[in-house]
Amino acid sequence: MKTIKIGLLGLGNIGTGTYKTLEMNRKEIVSTLGTSIDIVKILEKDVDRKRDITVSKEKFTQNPDDIFKDPEIDIVIELLGGIEPAASFMLAAMENGKHVVTANKAAVAANYSKLAETAITNNVLFKYEASVGGGIPILGTLDGPLRANKFEEVLGIVNGTTNYILYMMTAEGMDYSSALKQAQELGFAEADPTADVEGIDAANKLSILMALMFDKYVPPTEIPTTGITGVTKEEIAVATAQNCKIKLIARATKLEDGTIEYSVSPMKLKDSHPLSGINKEFNAVFVKGNAVGELMFYGKGAGPLPTGSAVMGDVIEISKAILK
Amino acid sequence: MKTIKIGLLGLGNIGTGTYKTLEMNRKEIVSTLGTSIDIVKILEKDVDRKRDITVSKEKFTQNPDDIFKDPEIDIVIELLGGIEPAASFMLAAMENGKHVVTANKAAVAANYSKLAETAITNNVLFKYEASVGGGIPILGTLDGPLRANKFEEVLGIVNGTTNYILYMMTAEGMDYSSALKQAQELGFAEADPTADVEGIDAANKLSILMALMFDKYVPPTEIPTTGITGVTKEEIAVATAQNCKIKLIARATKLEDGTIEYSVSPMKLKDSHPLSGINKEFNAVFVKGNAVGELMFYGKGAGPLPTGSAVMGDVIEISKAILK
Repeated sequence: MKTIKIGLLGLGNIGTGTYKTLEMNRKEIVSTLGTSIDIVKILEKDVDRKRDITVSKEKFTQNPDDIFKDPEIDIVIELLGGIEPAASFMLAAMENGKHVVTANKAAVAANYSKLAETAITNNVLFKYEASVGGGIPILGTLDGPLRANKFEEVLGIVNGTTNYILYMMTAEGMDYSSALKQAQELGFAEADPTADVEGIDAANKLSILMALMFDKYVPPTEIPTTGITGVTKEEIAVATAQNCKIKLIARATKLEDGTIEYSVSPMKLKDSHPLSGINKEFNAVFVKGNAVGELMFYGKGAGPLPTGSAVMGDVIEISKAILK
Repeated sequence: MKTIKIGLLGLGNIGTGTYKTLEMNRKEIVSTLGTSIDIVKILEKDVDRKRDITVSKEKFTQNPDDIFKDPEIDIVIELLGGIEPAASFMLAAMENGKHVVTANKAAVAANYSKLAETAITNNVLFKYEASVGGGIPILGTLDGPLRANKFEEVLGIVNGTTNYILYMMTAEGMDYSSALKQAQELGFAEADPTADVEGIDAANKLSILMALMFDKYVPPTEIPTTGITGVTKEEIAVATAQNCKIKLIARATKLEDGTIEYSVSPMKLKDSHPLSGINKEFNAVFVKGNAVGELMFYGKGAGPLPTGSAVMGDVIEISKAILK
């Protein structure tokens, strides 16, 4: 019986979380597929880094072609992060007939059309559930069980760093820089927080959501984007007095005439809005469909295991298609 | 090119909502499938009832075999409600090679193993997304994007009637009978509310969730079930003073040793729990997976169009498989 063979690009935090998700749930995954599945090659320079998993050193390579040109490999998982060389690697994998799974929102959002078209041309599947909302299964749901809807609106808290900072400013009355500092100390913000606090990460995710929901690709650089660096303690206090919360919202709304308005910016939401109660580093995506009405999906938008859950979910779906 | 042909059992509220969902989103659904799709026959006695849709009278039949024995029909949608004859009709449809979609939690929960086995034996697909959580795409998500997880727990507010009653008791200080009366006046509770207020409906849904998440079928009659008729104004006041909410929770937890504990009963949840903020007739399902962590799905658990969204989502997925 066929074994599903995977090549993995990158064994950093997310790569390790994905590897670990497969190891800890291997029995269930194999039983779901009815066949074995293995990560057989890994593109990664840092062979000796201490990781919470056991990986045979023979799996490591520093030559991506060892993966792309290996006729035994069915699926390539890209977890390098950053736009390049990740995007070029995904294209090369597809051109060599590999199905591709990624968690990389920056690379997908910057190259959405090219990646989608290359997958079609090469008759391979391209999946990126983990790129929006981490472990929250939002993309597969929009594209699967909700497909009978015309979508009208999406409002997302899709960046955990900024949600954590705004939460601390609200709950503890902190100013922006103290809250950022605390988020950095706790590992919820990076040393260089620009991509998060300026809304760039959220714009990447909105670009992907819009492409899927409205069949309209807008490069993230063309999405009007305001981050949270200008949000003051005083504005938060005013919002609180009005029974509101300030949240960084990635929003796209389809108007009556079919045009779509979109932006990433801090928004004041009433306390009665389901998104206003999403605290700390959690993410949530609120969607309106013309049949289903209002829905919200809530969960961990980042982290090695939640992201690994989404990546392996994509791998399982592709494996099922391969085995059919 | 092939047209997907559907036979519909029942054109009551949910049947009408499903018909309407297809009509209003036909263009998008046809574009998704790349082929046309039509409800060609309808088993329904009440031909003349006023409905918010236009249906040719020629589609109506009162003989189920007109649908089961029609070689042109690919998919049967069962929306009759109640255990019988719904369950027997679904089995007959499968035995005649039809794929089956249903929203009927009572019939699915009472006959889960038989229905699942009959689908396998006859090599047809059997889908029932709308049976739990109405429009909320919970079953397809557990069985799709979340398949890489071992599930640890599910806690669901899966009955809108009881959630509405408990919400009014909490928000307005009403006693149980006044809140029930208001729910009945607003159409959130039926004239005979037994199945809802005694927890029977929630137990049906928990039975289905457990079968899918833990591969363990427990008939709903064997689930320890306590409804909300014994919840007093005073208990609600005590919970409020403790910063808690009382909710009717369908719960299943997998213990360390692999055994599963399950029940439907009123539970006190802290205000910080994501389910405590689910108000009025809304539903929500909270799930823990060993990779993804905590997730919550929120939306409308009932109603003709949300249910129609879930039913048509299943129909689209089956149609894709037929067309492959």
